[in-house]
Amino acid sequence: MKDEGGPKDLNRRRLLLAAGAASVLATRAPGAVALPSSRVPAWDQEVDVLVAGSGAGGTCAALEARRAGASVMVLESLAVPGGSSSLSGGVVYAGGGTALQRALKIEDSPEAMFDFLIRAGTPNPPRDKIQLYCEQSPEHFAWLVAQGVPYTEKFTADKGLPMGDESLYFSGTEQAWPARDYARPAPRGHVPGVVGMNGGRTLMEALHGQLRAAGVKIRTRVAMKQLVIESDGRVSGAVVHSSVGKKYLRARRGIVLACGGFVHNRDMMVQYAPHLSRCSVPWAGAGDQGDGINMGIAAGAASLRMHEGFAVAPIYPPENTIPAILVNASGQRFISEDSYHAVIGHSIAYQQQGKAWLITDQESAYQSVQDNFPLAAKSNSMGGLAEQLSLPRGALQNTVAYYNRYASKGEDPMFHKSVDYLRPLQGPPYKAWDISVDRAFFAAHTLGGLATNLNGEVLSSFGELIPGLFAVGRTTAGIPTAPYIASGLSVGDATFFGRRAGRVVAGLAPDGGGRA
Amino acid sequence: MKDEGGPKDLNRRRLLLAAGAASVLATRAPGAVALPSSRVPAWDQEVDVLVAGSGAGGTCAALEARRAGASVMVLESLAVPGGSSSLSGGVVYAGGGTALQRALKIEDSPEAMFDFLIRAGTPNPPRDKIQLYCEQSPEHFAWLVAQGVPYTEKFTADKGLPMGDESLYFSGTEQAWPARDYARPAPRGHVPGVVGMNGGRTLMEALHGQLRAAGVKIRTRVAMKQLVIESDGRVSGAVVHSSVGKKYLRARRGIVLACGGFVHNRDMMVQYAPHLSRCSVPWAGAGDQGDGINMGIAAGAASLRMHEGFAVAPIYPPENTIPAILVNASGQRFISEDSYHAVIGHSIAYQQQGKAWLITDQESAYQSVQDNFPLAAKSNSMGGLAEQLSLPRGALQNTVAYYNRYASKGEDPMFHKSVDYLRPLQGPPYKAWDISVDRAFFAAHTLGGLATNLNGEVLSSFGELIPGLFAVGRTTAGIPTAPYIASGLSVGDATFFGRRAGRVVAGLAPDGGGRA
Repeated sequence: MKDEGGPKDLNRRRLLLAAGAASVLATRAPGAVALPSSRVPAWDQEVDVLVAGSGAGGTCAALEARRAGASVMVLESLAVPGGSSSLSGGVVYAGGGTALQRALKIEDSPEAMFDFLIRAGTPNPPRDKIQLYCEQSPEHFAWLVAQGVPYTEKFTADKGLPMGDESLYFSGTEQAWPARDYARPAPRGHVPGVVGMNGGRTLMEALHGQLRAAGVKIRTRVAMKQLVIESDGRVSGAVVHSSVGKKYLRARRGIVLACGGFVHNRDMMVQYAPHLSRCSVPWAGAGDQGDGINMGIAAGAASLRMHEGFAVAPIYPPENTIPAILVNASGQRFISEDSYHAVIGHSIAYQQQGKAWLITDQESAYQSVQDNFPLAAKSNSMGGLAEQLSLPRGALQNTVAYYNRYASKGEDPMFHKSVDYLRPLQGPPYKAWDISVDRAFFAAHTLGGLATNLNGEVLSSFGELIPGLFAVGRTTAGIPTAPYIASGLSVGDATFFGRRAGRVVAGLAPDGGGRA
Repeated sequence: MKDEGGPKDLNRRRLLLAAGAASVLATRAPGAVALPSSRVPAWDQEVDVLVAGSGAGGTCAALEARRAGASVMVLESLAVPGGSSSLSGGVVYAGGGTALQRALKIEDSPEAMFDFLIRAGTPNPPRDKIQLYCEQSPEHFAWLVAQGVPYTEKFTADKGLPMGDESLYFSGTEQAWPARDYARPAPRGHVPGVVGMNGGRTLMEALHGQLRAAGVKIRTRVAMKQLVIESDGRVSGAVVHSSVGKKYLRARRGIVLACGGFVHNRDMMVQYAPHLSRCSVPWAGAGDQGDGINMGIAAGAASLRMHEGFAVAPIYPPENTIPAILVNASGQRFISEDSYHAVIGHSIAYQQQGKAWLITDQESAYQSVQDNFPLAAKSNSMGGLAEQLSLPRGALQNTVAYYNRYASKGEDPMFHKSVDYLRPLQGPPYKAWDISVDRAFFAAHTLGGLATNLNGEVLSSFGELIPGLFAVGRTTAGIPTAPYIASGLSVGDATFFGRRAGRVVAGLAPDGGGRA
């Protein structure tokens, strides 16, 4: 500490400067929480139900609220409605015997669906939401059909979102170990029957069409920025911003926050979801700025699972890569390569320090521009490959020898890869593809959000309601948790609980029965 | 779905019942958030500063606030003051050239301490807090000495909390790989120089003595239960419960929440920290019920890192076990066995699905009642051991062969265990000790909590202050993150930021200078 002027002193100055900069954060600022209604100069407009966000969750909530007789206004911060849902594959995870499953002679039950969802994911799944979702899944799918979402009676056994017009596929990790031991696998990915990556747009066009028919308009380029709260804690309105300035909107019955997650809010990502923040591609519509979550927290809501996310390592398609092996920075395998790619992505992002490589042989290498991954090394020997990757000496060779020894007998004692994809690694050239979170096309979005009950009502950390406040979709901590075990859970959760929130905020029972 | 009355129907009924039970949560309840001051019938008492909690953080805050001239009241929900701090080892992580380090000719710098703390733990450490903590660490240690906390000029190189009267030791993972490559290791565990596990009690006796001398009383068996908030969002008082009923206490300058974490609140554990909730031993004083965190959230505070925790797999002492190897459920090694035991515990709890075994040989086995772990298997061959543990066929044998091959050359290419502990596993009997989170003595407490700035002021999710509200210690998301990389970070953080909060709530600058 005495060598003033030396490099240490420079370091010390740097530290002090940084600490000084950080303390700027301590500047006192007003208006940390929700705006007391006593400070609203005048309400510019009044409706029964105010919905922030026009994705799947907000749209379903608005639709059901309107059909229950409420006056409804939908706000969308962006110029184009639809949110992340319209950019997604449009998959809804449904089962337990949907009309489409039955038409295709697929056996399924709510119990098998429940067991899969409860056991294959996080250690603390939201049991109550999952139970209800499984029980009512056939009805929910029928409702989507009734809204005009087009589905074909076609199934595909291929892994990955169908690029043809098939409407049913295995969208998750049901067939991979250990999930296949938890419950009988069934295909539950229900996707609009349109060619290409157009499912989300198709889904949202149908739902928005219904919304228009019901007479509800979406106000684009209007962003909800602050909740207004009564002295008894009830949320009664909101401050919204648009090109014409700030307005105060009163919501007589309640507000539904459906603003998506926070993957595009860099500060929140670093603060709440550091593992996820390292993933290369924020994978959501531009509106996912965390506004809904932050407004809810400011009004006293609890937030759950804020560190969790969807993180996908899309090693397939093509499926010919699945006989290859995945290794971590220790040169060890860590998962079955036929797992759903978001289950693989979760392990890499959260459990393997963000680093992994796919080790391919002659047969399992990528062949074309569909590669999502940089080639990190190439060699005629495993030793050469390991050296280029700076893996621990001898580790990759040891891993491959062990793997090949059993694969040649049709066994994978460690991770039980399906025999459909199991064979020893064969001839060179061997290649290593970098599947690390910051190197590959590693898509990520957030799964944490506000605590809600089965009606989409927002809860405090004491488990009490915040009157007048609802939230749905990725603004909430819903059915999709980490690892994200199947495509369609997020849009499925948003539409299902969106509908329930819409009915309850309008005064109906959550299942649409008589007045609550 | 048609086999009414069969087992599936039973399952179905079970599901419906469970869903019905869950919906009880949806019952509307009043008072979700903080109490509006308009509903306070009358203030029963007024002080400048109200502190909830009498552990290290609350005590330091109260002490500095009182010395700055404020009237201060400290509430303690339990019958005995001291909180988790008095049950702890009493270690304060300090460095950068403390008086004790200098007296013992230990070389250290704030930069080395900073580099270790920033790089060895979570991917998103709180840089600003860590910077300030490292810079002011020598001063903070001098303050503790000035309060009468007794330290001896003795150092021990043994791993683990000194049971003799030594006051300085390597309390963290500084010497293990990869941390030892990040910064020059230095011993920074400063512990009161008393024999046995009495450091925490000794530390708190000194601090409570100062508090008494300053004329501040601790009101035991009085629990703060709800914050009172003005219409402008300012926190102005609290509702407290005791044997004489409910009282309303006004805090003219502010409230300091210092109520510890939430490891003893089972609902919160399952909801916020599911990985941690599986650990066998909640390791904190009985007051760690999450009240402070919940009150803060209800007042609009952001909460951070709520899933993170301290989880310890105390494989040492004795140190003779460190030459053994740790394996996960795949039969693979996953960490260097000479890592700090909370770094090992974190990996097991969060990255290895909660399961691990210590595989010992003749020399490395536990010999006495100091074992914290059940013996899971014993055999004269690794194959026999693996079979008893149901490990993947051939995996443990493969791991041991690889490990021994390099260990016999004095190398550990995978995890770089220190040569002090590195040798091939030798003769039988081989034993496997179950280090799984729910089998071993696996101690855990929470590290997540309220977002605060460098002054202990509580922040909303928008980064704005909640006026009048402060929090310190494990009620906040502070310096200790997961993995918990060194003993003394929690008490160090609580005392350091407790002092700052005490000065600021009383109206001084945080470093104790003139009025802010």
